[in-house]
Amino acid sequence: MLFLNKKDIGKIGKDVIQNAVKKAYGLVLDKSYNMPDRMHVGDGQNTLLLMPCFTKEFFATKLVSVFPNASQFDQPAVNGVMVLSDNRSGQPLAIMDGAAITAERTGAVGGLGISLLTDENLETAGILGAGVQGLSQARYLLFNRKIKKLWIGDVNSASSEKMEAILKKEFPWVTYGISKNSEDLVKASQLVIAATTSTQPLFKNDKALVKGKTFISIGSFRPDMKEFPDAVILTVDNVYVDTLFAAKESGDICIPLENKIVKPEKIKAFADLVDTPRPLENKPSFFKSVGMALFDLTVASAVYELALKEKIGQTLDF
Amino acid sequence: MLFLNKKDIGKIGKDVIQNAVKKAYGLVLDKSYNMPDRMHVGDGQNTLLLMPCFTKEFFATKLVSVFPNASQFDQPAVNGVMVLSDNRSGQPLAIMDGAAITAERTGAVGGLGISLLTDENLETAGILGAGVQGLSQARYLLFNRKIKKLWIGDVNSASSEKMEAILKKEFPWVTYGISKNSEDLVKASQLVIAATTSTQPLFKNDKALVKGKTFISIGSFRPDMKEFPDAVILTVDNVYVDTLFAAKESGDICIPLENKIVKPEKIKAFADLVDTPRPLENKPSFFKSVGMALFDLTVASAVYELALKEKIGQTLDF
Repeated sequence: MLFLNKKDIGKIGKDVIQNAVKKAYGLVLDKSYNMPDRMHVGDGQNTLLLMPCFTKEFFATKLVSVFPNASQFDQPAVNGVMVLSDNRSGQPLAIMDGAAITAERTGAVGGLGISLLTDENLETAGILGAGVQGLSQARYLLFNRKIKKLWIGDVNSASSEKMEAILKKEFPWVTYGISKNSEDLVKASQLVIAATTSTQPLFKNDKALVKGKTFISIGSFRPDMKEFPDAVILTVDNVYVDTLFAAKESGDICIPLENKIVKPEKIKAFADLVDTPRPLENKPSFFKSVGMALFDLTVASAVYELALKEKIGQTLDF
Repeated sequence: MLFLNKKDIGKIGKDVIQNAVKKAYGLVLDKSYNMPDRMHVGDGQNTLLLMPCFTKEFFATKLVSVFPNASQFDQPAVNGVMVLSDNRSGQPLAIMDGAAITAERTGAVGGLGISLLTDENLETAGILGAGVQGLSQARYLLFNRKIKKLWIGDVNSASSEKMEAILKKEFPWVTYGISKNSEDLVKASQLVIAATTSTQPLFKNDKALVKGKTFISIGSFRPDMKEFPDAVILTVDNVYVDTLFAAKESGDICIPLENKIVKPEKIKAFADLVDTPRPLENKPSFFKSVGMALFDLTVASAVYELALKEKIGQTLDF
């Protein structure tokens, strides 16, 4: 059995991870997977999520714990353990840092969105939310597009500065700007990615402000969370969701649907795009991701297979 | 983070494991635990069980996969991974072989039953079912009682011989006998332990045959499974279950209840016994165990704490 920590997972190329996400969409189209609803267990103010998924070759369970007060123990609020097993023999194959797998696959879901929904010559972008997921979105954005100017916005400006410092090292050819005003960030960006836990839209409901731009929402994974004002969903030509339950799970989709300001037909499955090269002629789009265990499975199995080949990680005698 | 495989777990003393099981019953009495229903996910003929549990100090999730056809890949049908975490900070503390934890805790549940329900001078016993659980029952039986003669019975006599060979090495002072007839085994034993997946009683429904003996059932974890004939539950003075959902989950309890041949009041919680030394004056009893995630948690945390202290296992840089 193989053990892969965050550092090991970081050695796997973004192309491998993004291809694994693409593979997951292919499995969705073929309906060749088995993914029960994710299970939530509450314990006081803490939450444990259990996310099992099966394909023909593998099965994987990601366990994610969310401890809002972990910082008082100098620990991260979100922890995860990923167990990857062989779906023929049942044998466990690998244990991985589940938080690192989540960050990579979420970045790659955004990255694949960018690669299919934005102009190849995209030059300006803004990221709202400078946490773990925001950083991962930035990395996959810069992997996919030759961005000249990247704006970073966060309610906590220390977080923005920290993210800027990390990105400056990794992508020194990009110019960075920290924005203290979301409207300014949106105005200056052709693409806006939000990765926050906000329950209120991050900028004002103004069609003129959002016109002609593409938006990606990574946060708002609950019906009470909303990152973008209704102007976004109303103004864009295309609305895509990574999974069809996004229409139930994310406030960015379910609130406009409930208020009947958008027709259900406008919400389309991103999976239908993945085999169509340059399908959208760069029309302004809104892509909403809520994630799914199938992404974790295909990413974890791709990471495992490459790690085996390249002798990355620690071998455990199970 | 610590990794503990089967060999590492095997280094932990049976007294430590059995005390951890006793601690779980104490937590049941204090109601100081949070244990959601175990989750079953089916995938074709295979099953994945997800068993989370929380106490004040720890939370643990055991993932168990059951692949009936794994033997064609030379792999065991049952695999497990146990993840133990700190319930204050949320940090993962240890990954363990979940099948080994299951075998130890199930053995210890039987062992604690034996220590409280049988005569200290017990000399003869029989085990029906010579699989992994049967072997673990035998080990905890021989840890708790100075048995002179141990009978082993299994539909597959090669399994009985294999178990006899293992036990002969570990407990050479005991005399072993392989029984090809369950009635003969019962007749010759003061205590009978069954650890099978049988859906039919393992011996005939004869009150004279079972009179004066104590019975422990480890199998029959589903309503359609039954290890003992009704004569057992009718003849014994006491019926104990390790968890109150045994009355729903095990055919050995739910079938006699449904057929109204036993009153619900006769079924008592074993947890009520654990603080009472020698409570039963060695009256003939029937103890039915179906297991619970809380046993896994208290056993895993005791194993983890001792392993840390004794420097057992492999340290992982998470």
